[in-house]
Amino acid sequence: MARGKNQNQRSRSYDSDDHERGACEWCEYALVITLATVLLIGVSALTIFWVFYYRGGYAWADDTPDKQFNLHPTLMVAGFVTFCGFSVLLYRICRCFRRIYVKLLHAIFHALAFPCIVIGFLAVLDYHNKKGINNFYSLHSWIGFVAMGLFGLQYAVGFFSFLLLLICNKGTAGFRASLVPIHAAFGILTFVLGVAACLTGLTEKAIFALGADRYSGLVDEGIIINAIGVSMVAILGVVMYILSREKFRPAEARERLTRTSVDL
Amino acid sequence: MARGKNQNQRSRSYDSDDHERGACEWCEYALVITLATVLLIGVSALTIFWVFYYRGGYAWADDTPDKQFNLHPTLMVAGFVTFCGFSVLLYRICRCFRRIYVKLLHAIFHALAFPCIVIGFLAVLDYHNKKGINNFYSLHSWIGFVAMGLFGLQYAVGFFSFLLLLICNKGTAGFRASLVPIHAAFGILTFVLGVAACLTGLTEKAIFALGADRYSGLVDEGIIINAIGVSMVAILGVVMYILSREKFRPAEARERLTRTSVDL
Ligand code: HEM
Ligand code: HEM
Repeated sequence: MARGKNQNQRSRSYDSDDHERGACEWCEYALVITLATVLLIGVSALTIFWVFYYRGGYAWADDTPDKQFNLHPTLMVAGFVTFCGFSVLLYRICRCFRRIYVKLLHAIFHALAFPCIVIGFLAVLDYHNKKGINNFYSLHSWIGFVAMGLFGLQYAVGFFSFLLLLICNKGTAGFRASLVPIHAAFGILTFVLGVAACLTGLTEKAIFALGADRYSGLVDEGIIINAIGVSMVAILGVVMYILSREKFRPAEARERLTRTSVDL
Repeated sequence: MARGKNQNQRSRSYDSDDHERGACEWCEYALVITLATVLLIGVSALTIFWVFYYRGGYAWADDTPDKQFNLHPTLMVAGFVTFCGFSVLLYRICRCFRRIYVKLLHAIFHALAFPCIVIGFLAVLDYHNKKGINNFYSLHSWIGFVAMGLFGLQYAVGFFSFLLLLICNKGTAGFRASLVPIHAAFGILTFVLGVAACLTGLTEKAIFALGADRYSGLVDEGIIINAIGVSMVAILGVVMYILSREKFRPAEARERLTRTSVDL
């Protein structure tokens, strides 16, 4: 009984909250979302530009392993940063959609990221084998391994939980809700590790491709590579900012959060 | 009036929540906190071991620039990972302390991190100048620059807000409370960027010190360097996990969060 009343009061305060949302807040929201979109698409575009302008483009043939390698950074940035980034932000971007559509979009973006990551990984594995270089020697590859492992786990958990929703929506709601905070925290960790893998990968590639001397001489290509990395840092900043703003959370989800943290 | 009643009900549900905290939850709490402590101290210990065993220890003299460089990773890891890590976790570790003591400890840990970061930065700047290498050419140094800038900003905001507390506690409480979520989000971003700077720095150093051939040959030192990096990844994981667990948050702060997210 007390619960019912309590909840009632809460939804009332939400309503008034929604009415009070001023022009200023919508303006901040539009600005941040636009910035995020530009950065997420921009970082992939910049990577593709870098590969075409400085690294000779793409290929997958026995006599051009270096061009085959180029698929690795491009696909990894697209999969782990652009697609995963949109997928993480969706929950805040689409505040007026019904939740089931948001979930569907979330699944679609991850379904796009999946093949990018798999092919991106195979490209570098095959490149190493063609060149006779050891696999998994670098810190970069270890971080990448953990990031890909977490991505796979998250994918499996999300898929399983969606199956449960299809089979028995009501009965499994409590269980599925209890997965949400863990799925969310590990999702952000996966994203951060994906970015960390990209940053170490870019550092490696800059030194391998340019040599320490040219890299420290501030040649154009080095600056482009650094710019790709800095865009990712900016993306991390925007994502953290968006996640920290409670008011970007759709009211419905916010209410659920409040309820769990109170009734825990 | 409605507000007063609402709050009352909420504190009641907290009390019962506290009583219900089972042995299992305390066990999880103790486990996670122990793991975090071991990792945070371990990563600095491992860095010091690496420097003494493979890199010839420390010095600050004109004829041994390489030993002077060694101060850079050690102090940066201590400042940005160990000290900042404890400082971030404090709010969840010390749930039974009074808030003012927790704030004081937070300030003390950051006061310890500050000189580490400044001296660590000067060590590498002076090393570059002695060797005639350009400053700020690498992605690593750009990320480090952003991380240090954010650290300084956060430091200034925290200090300013503490001053306000001393001057007029009651009157500025609302303003200071509104800073908290932003300070927290940017604090986590600073920590993540600090870790990212360390990971790219380790990658650079591994390739500079060992050369691509020995690094890809999986020599001992390469594995030690990778292990330092992987410990940091584990720290990121534990920190994300702790931050995601609402129940690790002290009840008082949790209540405030709930209130703000409802009444916003
Ligand atoms: C989230 C993104 C990424 C993941 C998960 C990832 C994963 C990996 C893995 C697992 C390997 C080791 C393959 C093997 O040893 O056979 C590798 C190698 C490599 N990656 Fe990435 N990578 C990512 C992004 C990037 C980016 C953006 C670059 C930038 C150019 C890059 C550059 C390299 C280089 C140069 C190698 C070969 C040297 C080495 O093994 O460390 N990677 N990557
Ligand atoms: C949060 C931690 C760190 C920050 C903020 C940081 C910051 C910086 C900055 C600003 C520079 C450029 C100095 C200049 O250009 O004069 C630099 C250089 C360097 N750092 Fe770090 N660093 C960090 C951790 C590390 C670690 C853990 C290592 C591992 C060994 C490392 C290795 C290097 C190397 C090799 C250089 C010289 C090459 C270059 O300029 O990129 N750093 N660091």
